[in-house]
Amino acid sequence: MLLSKLFTKTTKESASDSSSINADLLTRAGFVHKTMAGVYSYLPLGYRVLRKIEQVVREEMDTIGSEMFMPAISPIENWKKTGRDQSVSVLFSVSGANDASKKLNDSSYILNATHEDVITPIFQHFVSSYKDLPCAAYQIQSKFRNEARPKSGILRGREFRMKDLYSFHVSEEDQVHYLHAIAKPAYTRVFDRLGLGDRTVIALASGGEFTKEPSVEFQTKCDNGEDLIFYDSKSDMYYNKEIVPCKAPKWGDPNEEERPREDVVGEGIIGVEELAAFLKVDKQSTTKTLLYESDDGRFFAATVRGGYDVNEEKLCAVAGCDSIKLASVAKVKEVTGADVGYAGPIGLPKDVVVYWDDSTQGRKNFECGANKTNEHSININFGRDVDEPKEFYDIKVGRDGDINPSTGEPYEVCRASEVGNLFSLGTRFSEGFGFTFTDQDGKNKPVYMGSYGLGTSRVMGVIAEISHDEHGLIWPENIAPAQVHIVPIAKTTDDEAYTEAMKLYEGMQKKGIECLFDDRIDGSVGARLADADLIGVPKRIVVSPKTLEKGGVEVKIRSTGKEEILALDAVLGDKKK
Amino acid sequence: MLLSKLFTKTTKESASDSSSINADLLTRAGFVHKTMAGVYSYLPLGYRVLRKIEQVVREEMDTIGSEMFMPAISPIENWKKTGRDQSVSVLFSVSGANDASKKLNDSSYILNATHEDVITPIFQHFVSSYKDLPCAAYQIQSKFRNEARPKSGILRGREFRMKDLYSFHVSEEDQVHYLHAIAKPAYTRVFDRLGLGDRTVIALASGGEFTKEPSVEFQTKCDNGEDLIFYDSKSDMYYNKEIVPCKAPKWGDPNEEERPREDVVGEGIIGVEELAAFLKVDKQSTTKTLLYESDDGRFFAATVRGGYDVNEEKLCAVAGCDSIKLASVAKVKEVTGADVGYAGPIGLPKDVVVYWDDSTQGRKNFECGANKTNEHSININFGRDVDEPKEFYDIKVGRDGDINPSTGEPYEVCRASEVGNLFSLGTRFSEGFGFTFTDQDGKNKPVYMGSYGLGTSRVMGVIAEISHDEHGLIWPENIAPAQVHIVPIAKTTDDEAYTEAMKLYEGMQKKGIECLFDDRIDGSVGARLADADLIGVPKRIVVSPKTLEKGGVEVKIRSTGKEEILALDAVLGDKKK
Repeated sequence: MLLSKLFTKTTKESASDSSSINADLLTRAGFVHKTMAGVYSYLPLGYRVLRKIEQVVREEMDTIGSEMFMPAISPIENWKKTGRDQSVSVLFSVSGANDASKKLNDSSYILNATHEDVITPIFQHFVSSYKDLPCAAYQIQSKFRNEARPKSGILRGREFRMKDLYSFHVSEEDQVHYLHAIAKPAYTRVFDRLGLGDRTVIALASGGEFTKEPSVEFQTKCDNGEDLIFYDSKSDMYYNKEIVPCKAPKWGDPNEEERPREDVVGEGIIGVEELAAFLKVDKQSTTKTLLYESDDGRFFAATVRGGYDVNEEKLCAVAGCDSIKLASVAKVKEVTGADVGYAGPIGLPKDVVVYWDDSTQGRKNFECGANKTNEHSININFGRDVDEPKEFYDIKVGRDGDINPSTGEPYEVCRASEVGNLFSLGTRFSEGFGFTFTDQDGKNKPVYMGSYGLGTSRVMGVIAEISHDEHGLIWPENIAPAQVHIVPIAKTTDDEAYTEAMKLYEGMQKKGIECLFDDRIDGSVGARLADADLIGVPKRIVVSPKTLEKGGVEVKIRSTGKEEILALDAVLGDKKK
Repeated sequence: MLLSKLFTKTTKESASDSSSINADLLTRAGFVHKTMAGVYSYLPLGYRVLRKIEQVVREEMDTIGSEMFMPAISPIENWKKTGRDQSVSVLFSVSGANDASKKLNDSSYILNATHEDVITPIFQHFVSSYKDLPCAAYQIQSKFRNEARPKSGILRGREFRMKDLYSFHVSEEDQVHYLHAIAKPAYTRVFDRLGLGDRTVIALASGGEFTKEPSVEFQTKCDNGEDLIFYDSKSDMYYNKEIVPCKAPKWGDPNEEERPREDVVGEGIIGVEELAAFLKVDKQSTTKTLLYESDDGRFFAATVRGGYDVNEEKLCAVAGCDSIKLASVAKVKEVTGADVGYAGPIGLPKDVVVYWDDSTQGRKNFECGANKTNEHSININFGRDVDEPKEFYDIKVGRDGDINPSTGEPYEVCRASEVGNLFSLGTRFSEGFGFTFTDQDGKNKPVYMGSYGLGTSRVMGVIAEISHDEHGLIWPENIAPAQVHIVPIAKTTDDEAYTEAMKLYEGMQKKGIECLFDDRIDGSVGARLADADLIGVPKRIVVSPKTLEKGGVEVKIRSTGKEEILALDAVLGDKKK
């Protein structure tokens, strides 16, 4: 590819609105163009990289399922069958954009955020017997999610590229076996081939509302990752912050003298940060109390130390129920007598059990909501103001610094980006669609499903995040937009350096080696060499009078910076060199 | 690919809602699944075909532009710059699908029907000088159009696949040169490679509102095509029905005796068909009269014989204006004194010129609207009731049977499907976005643009429409889902016929020949052979005790039906045979 024929250009300055390393580098190198917040266009060099990533994914997925291609829009009726038209909070819908369009057709559709609701009826059409199972298919397609504030370049967007695989089974065991024995190894092969194997770990995460099976996340360690993962050295396993078993590090002086309890009026002050500032106390001395209603009709309270969040899944397990939701404003008022934001564990009706997180243990003179609108109780102490709980639980979302209960030591914690996830979906979708199969005994049973995502554009962003230096991008060979970047240093196209470089370019093209050729010889040498570094092709070859004098061309390996002079024949003769 | 591993199945019955040959065949063969009206999922075999078509397109487009990938959603602001948010009648918009989603982000976006409004600002970002021009880029992406009643399978859908190329130039001449000398030959190569060369012709069509340059359509002759194309044997050129120069064949007896004029009341009767039935006359004796307002503020009337439609572009040329629109209801009432539907050429205000189409010439006792609500004048005659027009024009949309004015003979007319189109866009978009370049003299000038579409999913549908027989699909070799379909006829997998067939399959896989292997040996032989015909892979190989006895396997060519027994080695030894 001649650089003069490429319409894109590199830019020195950081993009004005670049919000992350990947957006900054990919924009400056001319790989992507931000069409709007969270929505990027892939320019020729960038699209080459994306396509190569998707080809690696395709080759590995072809070993475990058939490729297909589902539409981006689908009927709302499909989503209503599982209630997901309402429950998926990032869902987009589509309808006529103007009066003329609405006159043509006034229907609305869903713009797919994921494709369970599209693929289930397709498999239902073909699968009827246990003999048809298991089966699996995947696609590589754009996905659309109405993110509130997309800000991590191509790591998380409103429109992004994803490989999504779906599998169908006679039982949960069979699906879980497929997940671990078939899908997981295929994912591992993908990340190995993309050069991310060393940094990518498997983390257990919540299975969500569909199943008790944990889901499996592939997390690539990356400073700008949105996720926090916790390494349990004892079991050699990673957990995501939602499900990591953890104990809060102790806080406060257990021997502190107990001060008299006070009820303080702080009108409209409800957030932890705001409250701590108002009370002039450390936020860890505050207590967050939330009221929940469980699926079996109970009401209970959960408390965590200021700075922590309640994890509803852990709380469900502790309370022994299947699902919970925050109590309504009216119910909070009824139970506490106060508006939302002032609930506290003291003085609640007797039938409202309080679950105390271990982060609240051992504190002196702590704060609680007073169960009166605008009021907070301070200098609360166990024993004196409220009975010391018989048991403290782990009902929190993990934080950096938390203790691993199985070792007693703080977890090794790192930031990571979720590049893949493997879910057990149970029978949630098959039941919504009435998708059953006939088993060996002629009985109708619901089909078990799994879904397995891999964000291909996110992977590209993660590679940009971790594989670069101060000069620009450093692409692994198998996904680089080209293998070689040739820079002739010449005054005219008749100069020997140019004609020799062109010979090299043509020779490489004949061999099927992808090449960028910088034919913009009227540009400054420095800028052209800087462009090569910024674009980040694995091998840069400079052809100049000086290198020719030395008997060849200068080959520089982008990743190591290693330079050497090689004869033209040697460069061409050995594709691998 | 083992057929037992493919989740799709063929079906004997026509799909219940199959509305066209392509939908029927592709659905029965398990290539596509209708997700909703106008929206199809591509199943594994179908997606293989689509990807192969897109790869052929990609290879040819790579010779004339760089591949990129733009998003499916874009900011409404972009579309407002050219007023296309309102003027594109098939445009979809996107917004949060439920309250939770709207709470996250309440913005709306456009779901792209085409990408001029997305690519223009991208090129504007990179192009500033004449030195950067010309340049071109293309993508292969899904497109979304809010069609009123999609009904031709994958020929025309609400979501479909398209290759769209855009080029940018210093002048209209340069763009027109690119269109004819660069884009057109690349398109020709695509259709040749797809086996459509013989049936695909270039037809001139309207340039639309953007330019006076005609657009160029690639039309594949096809009985179910939506378009009608007209062959001018004199110039060896095709025209589409919008711009074909044509004369209506004469109708009626010029010597018929003139009957007395009558004004007939027919309440609410306005359509040509309805009117002819009501009046008990041939519809060709009726006259359609429409009132237009031109961009320069004139009002005029256009008349065509019943059964014809007015072509606004031809009318513009005749009236000498740039654009026209139908007069408003109020204006029609003001000018004619009647409601819409009753306009006629007699008795209009003097300043309202009437353009008579040649189809109205030579009739006796014809009908016209009476310019009174609910009234029609019949037995109108030129000379007696209205002056014979000095000139008759060609202001109609062509119809089958129309006369070629340059030969005096009826046109050879055929149905065709538009598989590609090449448009000159002038400066419409660059002016909307303020996209200029600096010319050699340092002057700022607007960039000239062209856009060049090719519907890849439509091409797949067209091939299904034209390449099949009563048994099923017949795929050309280079886009077939596989090259060979092996059917072992055996009772168990230990039978010689099965093991020999499997050897063949494995041998072909090693050679990189794509193979379907029908391992469903518990199925009936007849059904399995019928499946092979329906799926339509170029070569079917049956391995049975009988063929082995004859010394080999039976090879049948799907397109010719030719069968022969070949030794296993011969089949494997020669990939081409």
